[in-house]
Amino acid sequence: MYNIDRLFEAVGAKGHVCVGLDTAAEYVPAAERKRAASDAEAVFAFNKALVDSTFDACACYKVQIAYYEEMGLEGLSVYAKTLRYIREKGGLVIADIKRGDIADTALRYAKAHFAGDFESDFVTLSPYMGMDSIEPWLAYAGNNGKGAFVLMRTSNKGMRDFEYLEISPDKKRVYHAVGDKLAKLADAHKGIHGYGAFGAVVGCTERDEAAEIRKNYSNLFFLIPGYGAQGGAADDAVLLLREGNGGVVNASRSILKAWETELKKSGGDGSAATNLFAAEAARRAAIEMRDAIRAAIK
Amino acid sequence: MYNIDRLFEAVGAKGHVCVGLDTAAEYVPAAERKRAASDAEAVFAFNKALVDSTFDACACYKVQIAYYEEMGLEGLSVYAKTLRYIREKGGLVIADIKRGDIADTALRYAKAHFAGDFESDFVTLSPYMGMDSIEPWLAYAGNNGKGAFVLMRTSNKGMRDFEYLEISPDKKRVYHAVGDKLAKLADAHKGIHGYGAFGAVVGCTERDEAAEIRKNYSNLFFLIPGYGAQGGAADDAVLLLREGNGGVVNASRSILKAWETELKKSGGDGSAATNLFAAEAARRAAIEMRDAIRAAIK
Repeated sequence: MYNIDRLFEAVGAKGHVCVGLDTAAEYVPAAERKRAASDAEAVFAFNKALVDSTFDACACYKVQIAYYEEMGLEGLSVYAKTLRYIREKGGLVIADIKRGDIADTALRYAKAHFAGDFESDFVTLSPYMGMDSIEPWLAYAGNNGKGAFVLMRTSNKGMRDFEYLEISPDKKRVYHAVGDKLAKLADAHKGIHGYGAFGAVVGCTERDEAAEIRKNYSNLFFLIPGYGAQGGAADDAVLLLREGNGGVVNASRSILKAWETELKKSGGDGSAATNLFAAEAARRAAIEMRDAIRAAIK
Repeated sequence: MYNIDRLFEAVGAKGHVCVGLDTAAEYVPAAERKRAASDAEAVFAFNKALVDSTFDACACYKVQIAYYEEMGLEGLSVYAKTLRYIREKGGLVIADIKRGDIADTALRYAKAHFAGDFESDFVTLSPYMGMDSIEPWLAYAGNNGKGAFVLMRTSNKGMRDFEYLEISPDKKRVYHAVGDKLAKLADAHKGIHGYGAFGAVVGCTERDEAAEIRKNYSNLFFLIPGYGAQGGAADDAVLLLREGNGGVVNASRSILKAWETELKKSGGDGSAATNLFAAEAARRAAIEMRDAIRAAIK
């Protein structure tokens, strides 16, 4: 059984939300941040509270390593602790690391992120250098069930620079070429629910192409960014699902900073806000998003 | 003054070799590895000896982070120590991290790798997500002179999967589209020696295209992989230079494992080999490579 099968089942049981723990120290309530021994420890306490409060309302977590690297070695120690906390609780975690390197190096990376201090259930990968930068990671799919989401069509403005280039002679785009290779790989490593061990990152910001992408890449499970702050809505995201499953929709800031949004609405004073309050607000935001996506499916 | 200007001058003074410290613990002589407190510490002692021995025979160092991440948190501590050792000695170091992410995340990454524990002089970046994943790093070019090498045409087999796709209507390839954007960026951030603050990664394995690439992207400084083990020779690498400068040629294993190669040739016993011997062999290999490239220019 691949982790992608476990993720499929988590979506069925708990909905489509992927909580993005892209936690900057400035997202932590000021009083809690001040009380903590360091910014990194403040981030960990905040993450812990949010994982506890959202655990039954989301399919998985995604941890963006940049926010931890920014805090240096101590930040990476908290990155490792966050992954471990989620996994020991029985949750699934995607390490958002977007690696992509030659085969020898890819194997080293795979060992780094699928075992040891930084063990995760899934990673994100970048395809620019080609399939020999992706395939070595499969060494951990067979025995350990590990999975990956490879960048295909992202949700940022810059996606038009290279992902959208038209390739001759068939007028497809670069991202189609990536998807075609991934679909082939998925067929060769297919889980019990019909999705390949390795899926793709497909943003929900471009509504027009969503149905076509879902149809043409039916065996790829999607990690879907672009929801909320980046402009994608539940109506857009569900176009990338298949029979109500086959994708998780990531939201980071709208959940991490839900406590600030709630305070702003109520005119409340944020100076005494606690992690517990932030965690409860995050839970409300995750449930609202989960229900909006479920409603849009029907 | 940009770091790219400092690198240009280092090439003039010390030649074109970039020593790749992709140091796996198994590259360290067995006796030294056994003596060390840990594999990570063994790698650091080895790196230190090699930096000391090659310092006047190479233009810069490249540290591939995967080999350190593989050793977990302790590995990253040694990664940080290796960068610091090179920089405190006055050397230039490229952090081979191949990052590429949305603008907000890119800024976090830039802070992580251009300041703090992991401060480097240059990073490598992956262009798949577009120029808004590259440009945020420029925030550190202006004040701190930091530089980057963006993947353009690499040296691995898989480069044909996506980098080589022909784009319509002008029959250029994806890597040309990347190069065109980088050349524009280089014009806007040009150093005193005519090269942009941010250069490109161009492998020396494809001899046929080298002259054309050099001619069309005259303002891009190249980080050149593919030398030695991957099949590129000095004759190939110099095709990517301009007036004898404008590029550094990376070699990792051929320098790190030069001590093993020498022992094999002489039929010597490796069990008592020391870091000092490994460092001297690395120096001989670096000088041989430096002189071969200089000879091929003439």
